[in-house]
Amino acid sequence: MEQLPELTAGQYSLVYNAMSLTIAAFLGSGAFFILGRNFVAPEYRKALVTSALVVGIAAYHYFRINFSWEAAFELEGGMYVPSGKPFNDAYRYVDWLITVPLLLVELVQVMNLSKEKSRNLITVLSISAVLMLLTGYFGEVDKSSTSIMSSRGLWGFISTIFFVIILVKLVQEIWGTAKEETGRVRILVRNILLLTVLVWGFYPIAYMGPFFGLSGAASEVFVQVGYSLADITAKAGYGLMIFAIARERTLQNYSESEAQAA
Amino acid sequence: MEQLPELTAGQYSLVYNAMSLTIAAFLGSGAFFILGRNFVAPEYRKALVTSALVVGIAAYHYFRINFSWEAAFELEGGMYVPSGKPFNDAYRYVDWLITVPLLLVELVQVMNLSKEKSRNLITVLSISAVLMLLTGYFGEVDKSSTSIMSSRGLWGFISTIFFVIILVKLVQEIWGTAKEETGRVRILVRNILLLTVLVWGFYPIAYMGPFFGLSGAASEVFVQVGYSLADITAKAGYGLMIFAIARERTLQNYSESEAQAA
Repeated sequence: MEQLPELTAGQYSLVYNAMSLTIAAFLGSGAFFILGRNFVAPEYRKALVTSALVVGIAAYHYFRINFSWEAAFELEGGMYVPSGKPFNDAYRYVDWLITVPLLLVELVQVMNLSKEKSRNLITVLSISAVLMLLTGYFGEVDKSSTSIMSSRGLWGFISTIFFVIILVKLVQEIWGTAKEETGRVRILVRNILLLTVLVWGFYPIAYMGPFFGLSGAASEVFVQVGYSLADITAKAGYGLMIFAIARERTLQNYSESEAQAA
Repeated sequence: MEQLPELTAGQYSLVYNAMSLTIAAFLGSGAFFILGRNFVAPEYRKALVTSALVVGIAAYHYFRINFSWEAAFELEGGMYVPSGKPFNDAYRYVDWLITVPLLLVELVQVMNLSKEKSRNLITVLSISAVLMLLTGYFGEVDKSSTSIMSSRGLWGFISTIFFVIILVKLVQEIWGTAKEETGRVRILVRNILLLTVLVWGFYPIAYMGPFFGLSGAASEVFVQVGYSLADITAKAGYGLMIFAIARERTLQNYSESEAQAA
């Protein structure tokens, strides 16, 4: 288990409020994906249901992370000191194990690929995502490693291989299809792929923190707030971009009242 | 962290009940916006979904504010004395960070503007709102300032610049379009703009409290009850006015059964 640092009231609250912001963003965007289903044509509603599942599952995990954070500290003379109860960071990995494959499924669901191509792509992406996260978790457990040649470094390297497989598949199959399209859909798909690369890039950086000797209060706060903002972008923001793609495709083929009546 | 005053049972309960009233108003109006979607034509349902998200997210935050209020006091000999646990007022800023941009989106969504004009207006208003709230929060953290020349005063001033940008945009773009319209829509848009200016004006007044030497029990109660009533008006009341505009536009173009069947 990780050794928690002593935090000032401001540091503790910043993390606490970032977690609460994340829960609010997930619940709000989830309600939007459910209530907004009718704004897209029937063939894209699967993707909105998937988006709602992602943020719903993530909201559940953030509630638990938030409770765990609260229990892990005690207020003593104006400072938040570790209470002895562990802060259970593993919730994040459990969450990602379910939500990351679903995020990839969402994207495939708005791409208008053939049924067979969709199925193959979902299989490859999901398996790669699960392997990326499992191997990453094996390394995460070893918090004491400060060397990149440790087991943490080795597992991190293996995990990265699966991350690269996902990126290659996304560029080949998703961008390979989208670049043939015209108008706003092409731009939206390009943007969601850029967002994925940039935001998913934060997680390996946080993972490598111990290698750079990062520890203590400032580093803990940076990582926790960073995870919160990255998760909001990678799940709620990503879902809104999926909605935008589905909406754009809908308006290319239907009028507003046709789409909502369908 | 804010220093809480000692409260009488009446003062404590007044704040507590104002918070509960706010939660009830948000849950009730949210249910109405969802259940009432079919009373407006398809093109205005987006605005009702946005209204529902605003009050839903705000209800979540008011639950947390209410729990935090409860934890921050202990009953001792008939008086409510600070328990030592902080009252987390930051929930308000976290809430506004999400809901204020959405409130502006709601309004644009019932204005029948061109797609491009809507998108530009939403971008400018949302960015201004986020900057207004972030800079306001930086100043809010500094509760000890009693001078307008302090960092609290400076951040408040910067925040006000973005508030003014929002007001100018609303008058130019929203009122600029609405004043060309006829009948009840024109009056409703004028009223919602007046409501926005008047009710949003309460927040900077509460923010400036410390400059006027306001502190202690009466001031705390005034600010908390004031925030509750301002939030009910600015979110639930505002959403109902958005509904009225959408409903009026619907009845101008559809019969009742056409609108509901669509």
